[in-house]
Amino acid sequence: MGYFDGASAAPLHPVARQALVAALDEGWADPGRLYREGRRARMLLDAARETAAEAVGCRPDELVFTASGTRAAHTGIAGALAGRRRAGRHLIVSAVEHSSVLHAADVHERDGGTVTRAGVDRTGTVDPSAYAAALRPDTALACLQSANHEVGTVQPVAAVAEACRAAGVPLLVDAAQSLAWGPVEGGWSLLTGSAHKWGGPPGVGLLVVRKGVRFAAQGPTDERESGRAAGFEDIPAIVAAAASLRAVRAEAAQEAVRLRELTERIRTRVSRAVPDTEVVGDPDRRLPGIVTFSCLYVDGETLLHALDAEGFSVSSGSSCTSSTLTPSHVLRAMGVLSEGNVRVSLPPGTAEADVERFLSVLPGVVARVREKLGAPAPVTVPARSGALVVDARGKRCPIPVIELAKVIGEVPVGGEVRVLADDEAARLDIPAWCEMRGQEYVGEEAADHGSAYVVRRVA
Amino acid sequence: MGYFDGASAAPLHPVARQALVAALDEGWADPGRLYREGRRARMLLDAARETAAEAVGCRPDELVFTASGTRAAHTGIAGALAGRRRAGRHLIVSAVEHSSVLHAADVHERDGGTVTRAGVDRTGTVDPSAYAAALRPDTALACLQSANHEVGTVQPVAAVAEACRAAGVPLLVDAAQSLAWGPVEGGWSLLTGSAHKWGGPPGVGLLVVRKGVRFAAQGPTDERESGRAAGFEDIPAIVAAAASLRAVRAEAAQEAVRLRELTERIRTRVSRAVPDTEVVGDPDRRLPGIVTFSCLYVDGETLLHALDAEGFSVSSGSSCTSSTLTPSHVLRAMGVLSEGNVRVSLPPGTAEADVERFLSVLPGVVARVREKLGAPAPVTVPARSGALVVDARGKRCPIPVIELAKVIGEVPVGGEVRVLADDEAARLDIPAWCEMRGQEYVGEEAADHGSAYVVRRVA
Repeated sequence: MGYFDGASAAPLHPVARQALVAALDEGWADPGRLYREGRRARMLLDAARETAAEAVGCRPDELVFTASGTRAAHTGIAGALAGRRRAGRHLIVSAVEHSSVLHAADVHERDGGTVTRAGVDRTGTVDPSAYAAALRPDTALACLQSANHEVGTVQPVAAVAEACRAAGVPLLVDAAQSLAWGPVEGGWSLLTGSAHKWGGPPGVGLLVVRKGVRFAAQGPTDERESGRAAGFEDIPAIVAAAASLRAVRAEAAQEAVRLRELTERIRTRVSRAVPDTEVVGDPDRRLPGIVTFSCLYVDGETLLHALDAEGFSVSSGSSCTSSTLTPSHVLRAMGVLSEGNVRVSLPPGTAEADVERFLSVLPGVVARVREKLGAPAPVTVPARSGALVVDARGKRCPIPVIELAKVIGEVPVGGEVRVLADDEAARLDIPAWCEMRGQEYVGEEAADHGSAYVVRRVA
Repeated sequence: MGYFDGASAAPLHPVARQALVAALDEGWADPGRLYREGRRARMLLDAARETAAEAVGCRPDELVFTASGTRAAHTGIAGALAGRRRAGRHLIVSAVEHSSVLHAADVHERDGGTVTRAGVDRTGTVDPSAYAAALRPDTALACLQSANHEVGTVQPVAAVAEACRAAGVPLLVDAAQSLAWGPVEGGWSLLTGSAHKWGGPPGVGLLVVRKGVRFAAQGPTDERESGRAAGFEDIPAIVAAAASLRAVRAEAAQEAVRLRELTERIRTRVSRAVPDTEVVGDPDRRLPGIVTFSCLYVDGETLLHALDAEGFSVSSGSSCTSSTLTPSHVLRAMGVLSEGNVRVSLPPGTAEADVERFLSVLPGVVARVREKLGAPAPVTVPARSGALVVDARGKRCPIPVIELAKVIGEVPVGGEVRVLADDEAARLDIPAWCEMRGQEYVGEEAADHGSAYVVRRVA
């Protein structure tokens, strides 16, 4: 009823389910064999490849099926880097790529390659000219997502592709979040996708390598999928993936309008109905179904549990829901508030009534979480300079920001307060709080067991 | 009706189908999420892991699911080699491993590692003491299949594991062909499997790494499957894999007896009913459902097509069915006849009537193929020594052997004939023919555009 995490995994599209069940009986044999069961499997596989290629906008022999979108990214990046080894070992990625791309970049760096991580602005958008400036004579590969998975911001792929083409560098586009809505425009060279993001089954990724792009598959390979994806093909899932991609595309234009209107409602009304909330991501250049916001003075995990209890399934980029205790790399690269972060990603078919109910319960849920976090008395000690110091070390997000908010009133206008904190999220959230509150963030100083974040009262 | 290629892929077990369809509705969400759909997916995944671990005979936290058996082998070998990097870079595999293991060994060699490929006898069996003799102080890993996929021979895993343990070297067992029949005995360290070999769906492999075994996953990883199998889990397929493994195990004891009797019939009656045929593999230490034989003077592809037309789906290790024009590496390592090779692998549930029908049509099919290959007049020219020379260059398997068979009558007892051939299969098939015919194979000599195979007439 309130599954709002389509950007993680979309529920299986009815067409996917139907195709998968049908293909279980016809597509289980080895498509490399010459007997009837093998020929049937091969026909299904070939037909699925045609369908997927048409949806992507490529030739069937440019597209292989992998075991997941992650695997497509890993294989695509490693193969393109190896294919361009002679050009050099420099890789460009945006700072807000999916973790599969960033993990592949990390491995490349550990192996002696160099990586430039192109920054984004506060909306999460890559600047094409800044990205182009990162291109070097030894750049082997550039990677850019078609749209961001956490905040929905659509990237300027065509402009970046143009710059890459001019420099003779192949561009790999991770299109996992956008393939449901349409083909990726521009002159990209490689493309990856993931079926379970568009309502297909798990277990299927796409890797497209344009003809003429140098590519050398790494690691052990076999004769399957043009030597680019070793291991027995999961044909029932592949058939379901292709059929559902065609089905969601047929519904895309109409559904995009509907979901865009629903997310616009959330964008507008969350800001209005929930105090101290920042909606993040680009307000216009964005995917239809994703809207992300952060709530001051709220911890992500408690908020998610409270929403789950109300029947809503959402995700969060807050540090307080992650086992690593660091906020999402996307929010960090954008420099926006991470505490109390909520990503709402509406799968196609989401009912308007569910969105309305979400909007009606959210303010109360946030208020209750804030109340529950209580009002821990801030420990204030006079600093040598006479300025205020708040010691929030050992306290996790969102407590440091809550304590800052509580003492700011005691600071004379023009005066400073130092917040001592050792929670990684403070580095992001204290500047973001200043931006939201119209206070001045002066900077960070080293401190015993953590950092001191200096804030000057302006208003 | 006559699908006899279960060793490639078994048709979906009814339990697998049922479990998969049920799990499509419950297991599509991200098991890493905290909301209800994620928790349900996590529960299904955990339960499947428990079931699979019980069938394998390991702890659930030692077992991860991969995207295929091939992927399990690639990941397992690379991770175990890296984990034992300090010990050295020597790898042992048997010469009859599945191609996924051999491909991983090739990559290791290209990367500067060393590989010993332990030989087998004419039944395809590894000699444990010869295998043990290959262990060196710098051996990082040893690999041995539990049973061979082409001829069904069961390997002495427990004895080899004991030797490895004594040497402090981990043993990785590829159990793809045997997991349906029971757990692998002996003190192995790593184990791989593939669900579609036991009647589970494609898209699921198993990788087991015993606690205490040094392992360092290579390439990009993520937080899924203990950092050993990156990418979104295919939970419906995993659930189906585990459920079907339990189901086939419950039927295994009874079905093994039945299939063993059916393959014994084939072993006995093929030799009797089809002249010039060699049944290969160990007659006793073998899997219940696999029997492999080779027919002189027959080309594999024509035979497979003829059997397909009669409704039988089998595979072949003959060079004449493969795009590489080389015979199967398994038959080569065994040193047995490869021409006219047929592997019959009966999936569980195979009807006795289908086997009987196969046995009734096979002699006629082979006879027709032999007739169709005709009697190409052998080109015989007197050699300088006065001995006979048959020029079969430019002719593919089984023509060189057919021409040899035709001229042998012209050779005086004690005299020699030289067969000039440039088909790779001749190197295997001419000695095999001599063995079957009681003639003496003298050896191979270099010749213009190919080799000369020297045969002395004994009988």
